[in-house]
Amino acid sequence: MQRLIWTVIAAFAMAIVLGPIVIPWLKRMHFGKEIYELGPQSHKKKQGTPQMGGIIFAVPALIATLAFCYKDGRWDFLLYVLLSAVGFGLIGFADDFLKVKRHAAEGLTPRQKMLPQIVIAIALSVWAYLNPNIGGTWTVPFFNVTWNLGWFYIPVMLFVMVGTVNSANLLDGLDGLLGGCSLFDFATMALICVAMAAADPANAGEYLNVGIFAGAMVGGLMGYLRYNSHPARVFMGDVGSFFIGGALVGVTTVTRLSLLLPVIALAMVVSSLSDLIQFAYFRATHGKRFFKMAPLHHHFELSGMPETQIVAMYYIVTVVLCLLALLNFVA
Amino acid sequence: MQRLIWTVIAAFAMAIVLGPIVIPWLKRMHFGKEIYELGPQSHKKKQGTPQMGGIIFAVPALIATLAFCYKDGRWDFLLYVLLSAVGFGLIGFADDFLKVKRHAAEGLTPRQKMLPQIVIAIALSVWAYLNPNIGGTWTVPFFNVTWNLGWFYIPVMLFVMVGTVNSANLLDGLDGLLGGCSLFDFATMALICVAMAAADPANAGEYLNVGIFAGAMVGGLMGYLRYNSHPARVFMGDVGSFFIGGALVGVTTVTRLSLLLPVIALAMVVSSLSDLIQFAYFRATHGKRFFKMAPLHHHFELSGMPETQIVAMYYIVTVVLCLLALLNFVA
Repeated sequence: MQRLIWTVIAAFAMAIVLGPIVIPWLKRMHFGKEIYELGPQSHKKKQGTPQMGGIIFAVPALIATLAFCYKDGRWDFLLYVLLSAVGFGLIGFADDFLKVKRHAAEGLTPRQKMLPQIVIAIALSVWAYLNPNIGGTWTVPFFNVTWNLGWFYIPVMLFVMVGTVNSANLLDGLDGLLGGCSLFDFATMALICVAMAAADPANAGEYLNVGIFAGAMVGGLMGYLRYNSHPARVFMGDVGSFFIGGALVGVTTVTRLSLLLPVIALAMVVSSLSDLIQFAYFRATHGKRFFKMAPLHHHFELSGMPETQIVAMYYIVTVVLCLLALLNFVA
Repeated sequence: MQRLIWTVIAAFAMAIVLGPIVIPWLKRMHFGKEIYELGPQSHKKKQGTPQMGGIIFAVPALIATLAFCYKDGRWDFLLYVLLSAVGFGLIGFADDFLKVKRHAAEGLTPRQKMLPQIVIAIALSVWAYLNPNIGGTWTVPFFNVTWNLGWFYIPVMLFVMVGTVNSANLLDGLDGLLGGCSLFDFATMALICVAMAAADPANAGEYLNVGIFAGAMVGGLMGYLRYNSHPARVFMGDVGSFFIGGALVGVTTVTRLSLLLPVIALAMVVSSLSDLIQFAYFRATHGKRFFKMAPLHHHFELSGMPETQIVAMYYIVTVVLCLLALLNFVA
């Protein structure tokens, strides 16, 4: 646990230092955000805020992980999680980079964005299926039974991975929203990894290393939030939200806790669901809207709730759900 | 730990339900805040926001503690902490109540406010000194040595108690500031109590019960922050800040961790210190100001930093300091 705390603090310190270096550089390079034309009117003032700020937490999280992970332990799981985070993060980076080059709100086309995600997700699903310690199984939280999905695991995980990454991307719509909510998720997963290491000594090294990474994400995000807190001086961009999505789904895959995602990451799930409901309702009713705007946090915004109160509400609900999830893993 | 988590959730649920009942009632009773005439100009818009919202977390915290504490265990420490919180809280309540009755920014006179604080602090200091498990000692964090202060303990603790309560009161100047910072403090102390219970089986019941109370404060404050997040719909008032100060100093006294206060509650300490520096400098220079305004958070505000960013910064620093404090108590 001491090592975990030092990991958090090291990643935090690096992110705090990186912020004032990266933000002016992003501004100089004209990595300012072109605000999505269909977003709320009140977001117009956010035009020009630099994006791609995700590197403020991603780079420190990676460095702190490599510095503090147990090198003598096994690190199959850690490698898996790092590839998931970096793999999806690079897609986001490509998207951000093209947005800036073209000075448009859209970078990659939807197809260009989806295809590499599917490739990475299939590769990661097959890898997990073939790994003897994961092997196509989920642990069902609150019941503590192992559910073997067989080969069906691969298409299901493809859906879970692509779904999580894009849900994280959708949740990144208000100052501090995705950064804070996912910080609580990673803190929860770090503690769960410590508990799983204690419960399974044979694989303790694997779990502890994944916990170190989750802790590094907590620290990096704490530092990032210093600069992303309302009114935000930087946005994480797709590089940030894809990195977070990839990291989170990686951690839950190796711990076989994908079923915990709808609990601790409910905020992401409702973002996607509200988007789907809005789209389906719009189609079915030939033009009526179910929410004032999707994803759900924009609905609250247009209902007159201040941005900072919405973010606080999402934080509080997420913390309560994370506490419920932790009930499984403590005496 | 499961019991602790349930305590947090129970207190949270009560506070969430209590908010929409208490806030309109406070408004109807005209418990609106008269903004301090010497505060920042930008705070004028906060005029009329109901105060005395401290009952939104104090009452749930007390009920959850009584519901979840270990009744078969020893509860000397818990009784001590509850009397400290309620005792100081009642002074704050009297102050709030008189402010409303008189429609003024000041309720009790400084002397009327200070005298009962000193009486309670002396009583609690003597009690702690006479309790064989506390007995005038402090544990020095990071060195793990016991420091016996002898009878000197009583005047020192008088200073610590009155200082903590008034520092909490000073920190309560921005939306979510004291509520959030003290939430992290109580979460830290709850975990430390669990660790101390494991390390000292003979007194485990005492520490666990204090931990339950700290957890109940975490839950109550989480619920309260739902309504106090910027822009705040309710302020905690003196009843809230005095209750928090009394609760926090009570918890650190029975765990002999008063020396941890400058770490986990640094935000409170700098609030008091900046006030003292401002006053002393003003006197010494015959009218010059060291800070643009004291306490320190108002200095940041007048330096152009948005309120929400200041609060985020205080949160982040407090979390890092709490993590450092936890290093003492984990393997």
